[in-house]
Amino acid sequence: MRITNLLRSKEEKSAMTRKKAGAPPGTMVYTGVREMDHIMVHLTQYHGNFYDCQTIQDDFPEPVTPQATLWYDMRGLHNVELVERLGKRYGMHPLALEDVVDVQQRPKMEVYSDGVMFVIKAFAFNPDRLELSIEQVSIYVTDGVVLSLQEDSGDLFKSVRKRLETSSGRIRTRGADYLAYALVDNVVDKYFSVIDQIENELDKLEETIMRSPEVETKSKIHDIRLSLLTLRKSISPLRELMNRFADTESTLITADTQLYVRDLRDHVIQITDLVETYRDVTNGLYDLYTSEISFRMNSVMQTLTIVSTIFIPLSFLVGVYGMNWDNMPELHTRYGYFVLWGVMLCLILGMLGWFRSRRWI
Amino acid sequence: MRITNLLRSKEEKSAMTRKKAGAPPGTMVYTGVREMDHIMVHLTQYHGNFYDCQTIQDDFPEPVTPQATLWYDMRGLHNVELVERLGKRYGMHPLALEDVVDVQQRPKMEVYSDGVMFVIKAFAFNPDRLELSIEQVSIYVTDGVVLSLQEDSGDLFKSVRKRLETSSGRIRTRGADYLAYALVDNVVDKYFSVIDQIENELDKLEETIMRSPEVETKSKIHDIRLSLLTLRKSISPLRELMNRFADTESTLITADTQLYVRDLRDHVIQITDLVETYRDVTNGLYDLYTSEISFRMNSVMQTLTIVSTIFIPLSFLVGVYGMNWDNMPELHTRYGYFVLWGVMLCLILGMLGWFRSRRWI
Amino acid sequence: MRITNLLRSKEEKSAMTRKKAGAPPGTMVYTGVREMDHIMVHLTQYHGNFYDCQTIQDDFPEPVTPQATLWYDMRGLHNVELVERLGKRYGMHPLALEDVVDVQQRPKMEVYSDGVMFVIKAFAFNPDRLELSIEQVSIYVTDGVVLSLQEDSGDLFKSVRKRLETSSGRIRTRGADYLAYALVDNVVDKYFSVIDQIENELDKLEETIMRSPEVETKSKIHDIRLSLLTLRKSISPLRELMNRFADTESTLITADTQLYVRDLRDHVIQITDLVETYRDVTNGLYDLYTSEISFRMNSVMQTLTIVSTIFIPLSFLVGVYGMNWDNMPELHTRYGYFVLWGVMLCLILGMLGWFRSRRWI
Amino acid sequence: MRITNLLRSKEEKSAMTRKKAGAPPGTMVYTGVREMDHIMVHLTQYHGNFYDCQTIQDDFPEPVTPQATLWYDMRGLHNVELVERLGKRYGMHPLALEDVVDVQQRPKMEVYSDGVMFVIKAFAFNPDRLELSIEQVSIYVTDGVVLSLQEDSGDLFKSVRKRLETSSGRIRTRGADYLAYALVDNVVDKYFSVIDQIENELDKLEETIMRSPEVETKSKIHDIRLSLLTLRKSISPLRELMNRFADTESTLITADTQLYVRDLRDHVIQITDLVETYRDVTNGLYDLYTSEISFRMNSVMQTLTIVSTIFIPLSFLVGVYGMNWDNMPELHTRYGYFVLWGVMLCLILGMLGWFRSRRWI
Amino acid sequence: MRITNLLRSKEEKSAMTRKKAGAPPGTMVYTGVREMDHIMVHLTQYHGNFYDCQTIQDDFPEPVTPQATLWYDMRGLHNVELVERLGKRYGMHPLALEDVVDVQQRPKMEVYSDGVMFVIKAFAFNPDRLELSIEQVSIYVTDGVVLSLQEDSGDLFKSVRKRLETSSGRIRTRGADYLAYALVDNVVDKYFSVIDQIENELDKLEETIMRSPEVETKSKIHDIRLSLLTLRKSISPLRELMNRFADTESTLITADTQLYVRDLRDHVIQITDLVETYRDVTNGLYDLYTSEISFRMNSVMQTLTIVSTIFIPLSFLVGVYGMNWDNMPELHTRYGYFVLWGVMLCLILGMLGWFRSRRWI
Repeated sequence: MRITNLLRSKEEKSAMTRKKAGAPPGTMVYTGVREMDHIMVHLTQYHGNFYDCQTIQDDFPEPVTPQATLWYDMRGLHNVELVERLGKRYGMHPLALEDVVDVQQRPKMEVYSDGVMFVIKAFAFNPDRLELSIEQVSIYVTDGVVLSLQEDSGDLFKSVRKRLETSSGRIRTRGADYLAYALVDNVVDKYFSVIDQIENELDKLEETIMRSPEVETKSKIHDIRLSLLTLRKSISPLRELMNRFADTESTLITADTQLYVRDLRDHVIQITDLVETYRDVTNGLYDLYTSEISFRMNSVMQTLTIVSTIFIPLSFLVGVYGMNWDNMPELHTRYGYFVLWGVMLCLILGMLGWFRSRRWI
Repeated sequence: MRITNLLRSKEEKSAMTRKKAGAPPGTMVYTGVREMDHIMVHLTQYHGNFYDCQTIQDDFPEPVTPQATLWYDMRGLHNVELVERLGKRYGMHPLALEDVVDVQQRPKMEVYSDGVMFVIKAFAFNPDRLELSIEQVSIYVTDGVVLSLQEDSGDLFKSVRKRLETSSGRIRTRGADYLAYALVDNVVDKYFSVIDQIENELDKLEETIMRSPEVETKSKIHDIRLSLLTLRKSISPLRELMNRFADTESTLITADTQLYVRDLRDHVIQITDLVETYRDVTNGLYDLYTSEISFRMNSVMQTLTIVSTIFIPLSFLVGVYGMNWDNMPELHTRYGYFVLWGVMLCLILGMLGWFRSRRWI
Repeated sequence: MRITNLLRSKEEKSAMTRKKAGAPPGTMVYTGVREMDHIMVHLTQYHGNFYDCQTIQDDFPEPVTPQATLWYDMRGLHNVELVERLGKRYGMHPLALEDVVDVQQRPKMEVYSDGVMFVIKAFAFNPDRLELSIEQVSIYVTDGVVLSLQEDSGDLFKSVRKRLETSSGRIRTRGADYLAYALVDNVVDKYFSVIDQIENELDKLEETIMRSPEVETKSKIHDIRLSLLTLRKSISPLRELMNRFADTESTLITADTQLYVRDLRDHVIQITDLVETYRDVTNGLYDLYTSEISFRMNSVMQTLTIVSTIFIPLSFLVGVYGMNWDNMPELHTRYGYFVLWGVMLCLILGMLGWFRSRRWI
Repeated sequence: MRITNLLRSKEEKSAMTRKKAGAPPGTMVYTGVREMDHIMVHLTQYHGNFYDCQTIQDDFPEPVTPQATLWYDMRGLHNVELVERLGKRYGMHPLALEDVVDVQQRPKMEVYSDGVMFVIKAFAFNPDRLELSIEQVSIYVTDGVVLSLQEDSGDLFKSVRKRLETSSGRIRTRGADYLAYALVDNVVDKYFSVIDQIENELDKLEETIMRSPEVETKSKIHDIRLSLLTLRKSISPLRELMNRFADTESTLITADTQLYVRDLRDHVIQITDLVETYRDVTNGLYDLYTSEISFRMNSVMQTLTIVSTIFIPLSFLVGVYGMNWDNMPELHTRYGYFVLWGVMLCLILGMLGWFRSRRWI
Repeated sequence: MRITNLLRSKEEKSAMTRKKAGAPPGTMVYTGVREMDHIMVHLTQYHGNFYDCQTIQDDFPEPVTPQATLWYDMRGLHNVELVERLGKRYGMHPLALEDVVDVQQRPKMEVYSDGVMFVIKAFAFNPDRLELSIEQVSIYVTDGVVLSLQEDSGDLFKSVRKRLETSSGRIRTRGADYLAYALVDNVVDKYFSVIDQIENELDKLEETIMRSPEVETKSKIHDIRLSLLTLRKSISPLRELMNRFADTESTLITADTQLYVRDLRDHVIQITDLVETYRDVTNGLYDLYTSEISFRMNSVMQTLTIVSTIFIPLSFLVGVYGMNWDNMPELHTRYGYFVLWGVMLCLILGMLGWFRSRRWI
């Protein structure tokens, strides 16, 4: 069940496979499975002191003032036609449109003649099932307009919207490229909390292993490994993406924004480091678990061996004197029975001493 | 049996070895073993609205119109002479011809003065035997003509032929280089379904290991490892091939087609990532299997130890009072037997308590 | 508990997370948790023969002579406002100020138009808990002024202050850039003692494993692994930092100082090597531990097997002659009992011989 | 015994050590141990239609025609003086001569002012002892003359000589550089058959492990590992050698020959890939072996536990009623004995059911 | 005890730590612990036919002829003042002098304005304790003068001195740079014999493991691992050192000598390869040891299981007929006893057959 998360769910994958097998390049096919009741499109406009946010249906209004920056925040991609109309309204390249609805993309940044496209992954970690859920987010920036397109209805960009509303951090005074940066930054920042949650699980696992390893411990370690693998797969292309973002010659991205992107790149490097480190930590936990099991097995074996080694010879001795031979002279001595108890006690003490000398007890 | 798949079957390999040991470079020797009853050659011609597909024997007709693009789809390579005639008809270099029939090639792209040659591998995964079957496909493109040469009779390029027939995706309006791209793309797309099938097997294995590892589980993991090794061996050179394809200065490949090749390159990178990820997943499964076995062994040991540790001392006690000494005063007491039962019950309870304190039960 | 050290303590991390989730870039938020009673700021001024060190509260005095080098040594960062005032007094860039109080930074060197900033980590190793404590140290150098800002009240730079006071090593005759180098060098030198302490623990662990592995041995190995991971995470960026330091074109760093930085770079490389080597050593110890456990288990098993294999058949034999059949002719022979003893002795000797031939005893 | 193969045999190595310790650089010392009865030197001359092959003793005749290509094939190197005379006759550099007789060289290509020298390794695999035997081959090419010098008397270059004799592959029409290429190609081609043999052994091992692992299985895996290590050590420098060969600016190597060298380079890369792949396969087999042993141990343990857990409590019960207490009321009941049998049968069935529920039987 | 060898002995390290913690850069502190009774300084002068070697105390005489090359061979470094006087006499840079007595250096080559300094490590392997002893050797070359400074009194450069004395290898005709090369070469050559000795130990270990693994086998593997780690740590920087040596632009090193250095570089690469290979071999041995232990444990377990599985049910049976029930009809049959023996024999044979079918016996 869980391995499939690496490539999203089974249904999505078979959708992808179906697409892959037949359609020619350039066809828009939604390869995900999340179909919501209705697609939400939020249009935010701002410019200096002006700020307005509205929900639109399927008409894309003119900007209120020509200088305003427009941000379309679309949630839900199953209506391919609507996506296409929005994209074409702002001159998106057909290949970019195809990438938006093909939610199996590797994270990437593509520079078109009149727009820049980012495809990145947003994650959420479910601590109960130790599973990552992945969502593809596309951000398209063109002159004065930013489109963000995501599959699910969750409000990924809440904090950016809030900063726009309260105008904190001077975000309103900057252009569309800074908004695009802020959106990407917002997604990347969430990786930290995913990694934090994974760390908490590793912490709990470590304590469990130390106290007493359980049967599901090993599958939990396995699940976290898979989650880290998935994270790595999505984060490793980000490093190059950030380099291209920071160094792009596209006139749509100002030098001022690129300064901030460099900061973001540092975060991405830090996240990459953390993922690698936690992979090492997970391997370390697995080793710890294995050696804990070995140690326990050794201690179980020692107990068994001590008990058996003491009592099996004694049982033999008492068996000897339970035999029914006609001629067993010892049986008829007066203190034979007590002498035997003495011998057996000596045997027990001798063996206990020997075990102590081998550090078994 | 299975390791040999890494280098195709045993017979093929000994064929290769025989060739290697003797012949000078430049000799055409078919190093495969698949000999079909008759070699099939399909000739497809198209140009704008015109489309024609026919099966030819061993004459290579003139194109219907000079602007038409010709695609020879040859299946079966054991008739080296026929391959040579076809190749020479369209000016293939002797070294390229040699590569076509030597089916042990590494995937590669070679640019000749008047043609470009691609050698790639097509895979099929047999989920029952957990085996990959490999077939070498050579694609040669020269001015207005594409040759595709494969060993087996399976119709690898069904979907391309269909798109040509229905003219979907404007494939007919583009030249021979785009067709060559479409053929390569077609083979690469199939890798996704192979990887999907492998993933399904990994899924099943994971469930089996969680439920109850079987004796053949470990050999299944081993088989999938070998399949992934084989895939990696064939896919890793594709990355460089795609770079050369996308950046070639050969005038046979138009800039327009190269744009599409860049997309294909992204797919190849994605596949490479997936193969690496699944290798990690397979190692994780192996660890899971190993620790599952250890955990079971530990639990088996604990059962044995609990039973032995409880009953061996008791057996010793009852053995004591089964002895036949003349002088054993306890035996003649009235309630000795019942006292013994009490002592033994206390022993049992004491040991159960001790086991619980060690978390064994 | 211990894994969290990789990212400092839990409280600090949740502080970081809180910050990350909301604030726009450029906001100063202290992401640590160490709040001291009062922040200490030491101002040291020196120039040739002149040396003066005073504790200041929140006024930043004019230098005594214009040529004097000023060194502000601030300990405690929770008062963000004070940090900001000090930084702004000497023209620190807002991004640099943000980095000072965000104690989750990767080690880095940033060149601003009128200052150079170093962010590095200072470590202390607690041998009893096998834990590393981490502290972030920022060093900002501008014309004639050095600011060093650390979280804790510990006097990290004692030896530098002493050298300034006694004027040993001609440190007083050099400028602010040499002082910055001396401070960084001081922190890096402490890594050696941390590594020394880790090595001592590895030494002790090795002896313990050789003598008799204990239940906590494996968790100690695990702890040291985590410490080395943490060290590596903080030291690996230092290598690049040193290269940038040694090759920077900033006019604030003189060529003379860069010569010394090259020496320091050698130390960093040596530390990196040592950390990698000790990671290998730790893995080696883990293997040693594992095989020690296996060897012990094997020897326990052999003991059990020897005892059982000798006495179980003998117990069977004595059981046979404890049966109560009416018709058991052997029982009534005269020397049967003694013959049985003879047979049993032969059995014992035979089995001992067989064990010796298998090298079990 | 076997590890020494990594550096040839023990005697050879001590010879090497002796040399290393004393002699100054530039001294010719044969560091091998293969002393044959007499050194064989074959001189082959060819030019277009002319071909002649003779065995010479210690005179090096003038070429029959000035345009003829001369190939000296010398087998046996212990006569250092003879090697020196042959080398000096054709202007070999003293350092090149030293390399010829020092058979511990890393594979390399050296360009001297008037000659090019190749040092490579020839392998033979002994499937019975799972050992590689290594022989150093030096090939020196100068204007119109090729010297090949090997240690052993085996005819490594049989197929080249045959092609020369029959003039197949137009080898006679090309110059000395092509001959040198053909000789190197010949040695490299033999690597494929060595790898084939190793693969066969891996195949057999896999079957053995699947059927029933034997005590020598693990040492066989170990031997193959060592062989692959040895191969890798000799093959990895070949990659760079081939690059230098293909790109050399030496006028002795024609562009035409370099085209063929590029092909050869592809083979070397393929061999490197194969060796790496088989190293992975060998590690996989080792894991398979380990888990097979674990699985068996687990199944052995289960058998033991089932038998013990069923019978130990029963033995206790029958022991109870074998005691000799005066007052044991049950013994005198009429059907007590049969009731006990019933109880014991229930116990057996209960335990079997419990084992089945734990999937032990 | 042994891990400390990685950084020399404990005393030396604490000396280093003490130094590190306090002193400013540029201070000469001897960080080793080897204090000999008196420091030996050998002065060798040679020029063409002239050769003279004398032991000097603490005066550094003028050269006999101006063209003579002087070689000071100093053994023992604890007298820092003497080292400083010798160094200053020939213009050594203070930083170079500091490096000579700080015996914790990474191997390196430093080019000063009027001299070149090499710091390398000399090793000796103690086969009994499986320990490496390390000694730092500094070689300083300036115009016509070579200083070699080592810690211990052992004559590392015996063979060079002999070659100088006998003038073999024309060493006397070359200058100081060639002498420096010869000294470095001499140290590097000794690595081969250290590796040889390690290989011998690996050979012995392999045989021991195959025959019968002992309790100290695993710690021996561990010791060799540590030795190889130590070697690698000291040898890996040599590769870069050799590149710098071979390509230096310092006028002190002639092009002629650099030709020889290239040869030496090949040796260093070969040694690096060998160390890596033996690390792999050591890991292989560890695996072999582990699987040997597992195999033995499995065979021990099988023995135990066979014996127990056969006799425990039989003991139960004989126990049954040792019970004292009043009503046990079988006991009074005539041939019951013999029938029981028959049943037990059948049981034994049946179980033996079953074990054989599972390949346990």
